[in-house]
Amino acid sequence: MNWLKRLLIGRPLENEALKDEKYSVFWGLPILSSDAISSVAYATEEILWVLVPAIGLFAFKPLIGICWAIIGLLAILTFSYRQTIQAYPGGGGAYTIAMDNLGPYAGVAAGAALAIDYTLTVAVSISSGVFNIASAFPVLLDYRVWLAIGILLLIFIGNLRGVRESAKLFGFPAYAFMFAMITMIIVGVFKVKVLGFIPRIPENIPEIGAEPLTIFLILKAFSSGCAALTGVEAVSNAVPNFKEPSPKRANMVLLLLSLIVLILFGGISYLANLYHVAPLAHNSVLSQISAQVFGGHNFFYYFTQIFTMIILAMAANTAYAGFPMLISLMARDGYAPRQLSTRGNRLNYSNGILILTLIAGLLIVVFEASVSHLIGLYAVGVFISFTLSQAGMFVRWLRTKEKGWQYKAAINGLGALVTFIAVFVIGNTKFFMGAWIVVIVIPVLMFFFLRIKRHYLAVSLQLRLQPEELEAIDLSKDVYRNHVIVPIESINKSSIRALRYAKTISNNVVAFNVATNAENERRIRERWQKLHTGIPLIIKYSPYRKVIEPLLEFIESYEEHNYRKGDMITVILSQFAVKTWWQIFLHNQSRLFIERNLLTHKHIVVATMPLQLKKDNEVINKYTTVNKLAQEVDNHNKSRVEGDSQNPEKTDPPK
Amino acid sequence: MNWLKRLLIGRPLENEALKDEKYSVFWGLPILSSDAISSVAYATEEILWVLVPAIGLFAFKPLIGICWAIIGLLAILTFSYRQTIQAYPGGGGAYTIAMDNLGPYAGVAAGAALAIDYTLTVAVSISSGVFNIASAFPVLLDYRVWLAIGILLLIFIGNLRGVRESAKLFGFPAYAFMFAMITMIIVGVFKVKVLGFIPRIPENIPEIGAEPLTIFLILKAFSSGCAALTGVEAVSNAVPNFKEPSPKRANMVLLLLSLIVLILFGGISYLANLYHVAPLAHNSVLSQISAQVFGGHNFFYYFTQIFTMIILAMAANTAYAGFPMLISLMARDGYAPRQLSTRGNRLNYSNGILILTLIAGLLIVVFEASVSHLIGLYAVGVFISFTLSQAGMFVRWLRTKEKGWQYKAAINGLGALVTFIAVFVIGNTKFFMGAWIVVIVIPVLMFFFLRIKRHYLAVSLQLRLQPEELEAIDLSKDVYRNHVIVPIESINKSSIRALRYAKTISNNVVAFNVATNAENERRIRERWQKLHTGIPLIIKYSPYRKVIEPLLEFIESYEEHNYRKGDMITVILSQFAVKTWWQIFLHNQSRLFIERNLLTHKHIVVATMPLQLKKDNEVINKYTTVNKLAQEVDNHNKSRVEGDSQNPEKTDPPK
Repeated sequence: MNWLKRLLIGRPLENEALKDEKYSVFWGLPILSSDAISSVAYATEEILWVLVPAIGLFAFKPLIGICWAIIGLLAILTFSYRQTIQAYPGGGGAYTIAMDNLGPYAGVAAGAALAIDYTLTVAVSISSGVFNIASAFPVLLDYRVWLAIGILLLIFIGNLRGVRESAKLFGFPAYAFMFAMITMIIVGVFKVKVLGFIPRIPENIPEIGAEPLTIFLILKAFSSGCAALTGVEAVSNAVPNFKEPSPKRANMVLLLLSLIVLILFGGISYLANLYHVAPLAHNSVLSQISAQVFGGHNFFYYFTQIFTMIILAMAANTAYAGFPMLISLMARDGYAPRQLSTRGNRLNYSNGILILTLIAGLLIVVFEASVSHLIGLYAVGVFISFTLSQAGMFVRWLRTKEKGWQYKAAINGLGALVTFIAVFVIGNTKFFMGAWIVVIVIPVLMFFFLRIKRHYLAVSLQLRLQPEELEAIDLSKDVYRNHVIVPIESINKSSIRALRYAKTISNNVVAFNVATNAENERRIRERWQKLHTGIPLIIKYSPYRKVIEPLLEFIESYEEHNYRKGDMITVILSQFAVKTWWQIFLHNQSRLFIERNLLTHKHIVVATMPLQLKKDNEVINKYTTVNKLAQEVDNHNKSRVEGDSQNPEKTDPPK
Repeated sequence: MNWLKRLLIGRPLENEALKDEKYSVFWGLPILSSDAISSVAYATEEILWVLVPAIGLFAFKPLIGICWAIIGLLAILTFSYRQTIQAYPGGGGAYTIAMDNLGPYAGVAAGAALAIDYTLTVAVSISSGVFNIASAFPVLLDYRVWLAIGILLLIFIGNLRGVRESAKLFGFPAYAFMFAMITMIIVGVFKVKVLGFIPRIPENIPEIGAEPLTIFLILKAFSSGCAALTGVEAVSNAVPNFKEPSPKRANMVLLLLSLIVLILFGGISYLANLYHVAPLAHNSVLSQISAQVFGGHNFFYYFTQIFTMIILAMAANTAYAGFPMLISLMARDGYAPRQLSTRGNRLNYSNGILILTLIAGLLIVVFEASVSHLIGLYAVGVFISFTLSQAGMFVRWLRTKEKGWQYKAAINGLGALVTFIAVFVIGNTKFFMGAWIVVIVIPVLMFFFLRIKRHYLAVSLQLRLQPEELEAIDLSKDVYRNHVIVPIESINKSSIRALRYAKTISNNVVAFNVATNAENERRIRERWQKLHTGIPLIIKYSPYRKVIEPLLEFIESYEEHNYRKGDMITVILSQFAVKTWWQIFLHNQSRLFIERNLLTHKHIVVATMPLQLKKDNEVINKYTTVNKLAQEVDNHNKSRVEGDSQNPEKTDPPK
């Protein structure tokens, strides 16, 4: 198993490797932007999926309006997050800000919303990436779910092995994608506006739609388009990863990021409008635009589609960095199992990665790798975390009242307000399309987080020592005794070693043996008499070969009779340490069973004494041919009682 | 999971339940005979499968001759096994006899052959049973593999729950099957010989076959027919299960068993001859005979087929008793993992049952539940164990030279000789039909068995104390010291408890702490100074949050500097015992990791100190509304250092 683990997850990670290279603006931008800019690949398409089937060709008019609304929202968010960057130079995610400023409820709510957000980012990004690549290579259309799961597994394994967000690895594809998109927008606009190219109106769009253009429809389209804004918060989480002065550089990156999203999202929506592109089940909007702009399936087209796929996979990958980080923050605060807070051991981290993969995989399978099906779940979580984060900032300014707090509070207040309205709109328009799942899952997660916190509080209250209690403690005044019970299964080097140890730790030592037949009992008494131990031996006869139960009974009765308040009883258990893995299965694991049982007692300490066994070949001559085995077997049979103390039944007559 | 386990395998088995009811002759016969008598359901058919396709209608002449040969073999085996019963009133399986008289090689060879035999008994019996029931209900023909797996699982679950060979459960169907067979034979013979019924010659038999009637063909048919003799050895294994005088009763049962096999196998073969029944892929020979004899698919016909199915399932079930028993005998001798020798815990037994089910299931699937495909593998193993068992008896008489040993040796020698010839014949004629698998698997199994034995020998040699060594031991003269290291993660009630215990077991106590930041270190030093422990505290600074590694390094360097030959170092680790199962996941399992690491050292004892945590609700008021949580969280944050000692990183600043 070890080689398999090694192959999958690589060598153990050195802690020092965590000191990542610090970002400049030029490299920070591509690393932090993949989630945000990749969402332009599906945002326009999802708006059209709401509008075109409903109102036909008329859809392209409200599209532009909705676009402006979303870009407006982006502007507000950008200003709002600029302030977060200034206020939290140590990195301020929605969870941290909400916990700090709004208290634990809002904190765990933000944590739950973010956890959902990360999972959906993985599912949506991969699904969209697969759709875009299958649009270019239609033969793949039938295998979208398999393809998506395959990419998910690749990202999973990559993350288990510890693919970090390396600047060089991420920089090139991100810039290549931006380059492809901007080229497409320029060429596309130029072709129509300057060269006078007249795009054909696709046949699949009805002139007049089936439904009237209602406010609800527009809000629904707006909700779908809000997916374009996911990932904008990434920069404010990562402030400390920038070179000094980090807030300044982070702000620069945030500004550039917003600008790029604005250009790409606006540009693509405008192209969709110009070229009258309608969403199709087998060809993505981006692929249709790209094919029309570049004039067919040529190099430029494939370049665009392939880098779209790559940037979407990168976006999924960022969630793999964010999710375990979130869990580790929550674990450090006691809202998640504490051991998840350790970064040192790669395995702890891989728990988070595994959970993320399983849930994302489930979502991909259940929603058949369809962005349109997933989008209903997506934006709610994101905007809830936006709202909590902005509201937290708002409360913070009211509290600190630092210079210019009125202005700052106004900005963040506005941010909180508009994102809250967005939550409300998305929740209402998408409720039956999946948002209800999020509405249920968030409180459930919150309940678990709070329950965990409660447990840690209870533990901490039990263990707490107040300073005054501290000073009252004087160990030199203790008069407590330690009793030692040494269960022995036969008299051999291992049991002598245990008895010898027992004498060094206490004067109250008792040896205990379970005899499964009279001959066994006689034999062990005889041998015991020859020893000079000064330790009483208690033998219990157990006709039905039970060994563990009589031992536990003895320990309990001993506890009952000899125990005085404050005393401890130590039970010494021997454990063979074998040299070859398969030999583990040759030794009775009853020690673990006994230990688990004893650990439910209050005053019992279990002392495990390892006995390092030599390799078989060191004891039995390597060249002892199997011919001599018969002889050895005979010798062994004669001295059975001294033998393997792990098997208490060896002299039992065969049934 | 517990309820599922309970549902599947029932309540834990009381040891007392193992004292089974003792058999009389009347009830012993059906219990021990199911394997042997059920094999008549396929033996004749398998002979015909060899002969009919090759030599057509002429096949029915050699059939009778082959039958006589097999019955002759049965007679020799019966006489041979009578002597085994006399000599081994404690139960003499092939493994025991070969081990006792021929040495460990022959012993493990017999063990391997028997293990294979048991597995194949399950696969062949179930496959034949399903074929017979599908012959009666042809709609089932396409689902034979599924049906076989279903029956296998039923038997598996039944055995996990501990279905014992209860006399009442087994007696009725076995006698019903015998009754049905004998009725069929009498009616069948009467109909032809007395009433002059002339059976139609089936069209599917060619007048003249494609091959000549060679000696090889006859030997091949004989090999297939030898399957009729499987299970004859069951009686000699079970002598002690009979009422006194058990050898006498066992011998009676063996004689009756042989007589019944003779009548049924001879009778069915004779009927096949009379009615010219040819083997068909969709209708078993037994089903064809029964339909012709009883004149169609009526009550008698269905009665016969259903009880054939049942007795075959019972035969499979006997292997479920025999296989774990064999493994436990081998485990007791050290040729299999020792813990498998325990009968007390049902789980140990269920390992054997699980292995048997998995392999039998694999065989059923691979060989598509076809008896004809499986039969090539079957008889070799059985006859190898026959041969080893008889040869063992032969050697025994030569050695003991007890009264009449010449006569006894002659009988067992003859038995060994003819069964050895049978092994040779079967091995040769069936080599390419599956016997080669057995020929490969037996040595592989032998290798593993001997390898395991070798390990136990090596352990035993390492632990052995000769009587003279025993007397030289005087523990009162020991001057060895015990050093204690107490790793503490903060100063709280749990660590005070560990320190207090440490003082009772040694005067050389050191407390050790890993500080992950300077503030933490300052804090713990300050609190330590307020304590009166008389114990030095060593703090190691670990900037990268590693906790386990510095501890292990400290222990190793301590061992290097302070260790004197014969001394022991005790490391005390605290372990929280939680009240609710899910809370286990909230506590760092690093103790297990540290323990596993320390157990590879020679002189280190790991003392695990359990701390019984109260239920959360006993510490935090049950009615503490979640509203108060925020308050508690604040209080808790202020006193964090005293908190949960399982998390060493709690005061680490967020990244």
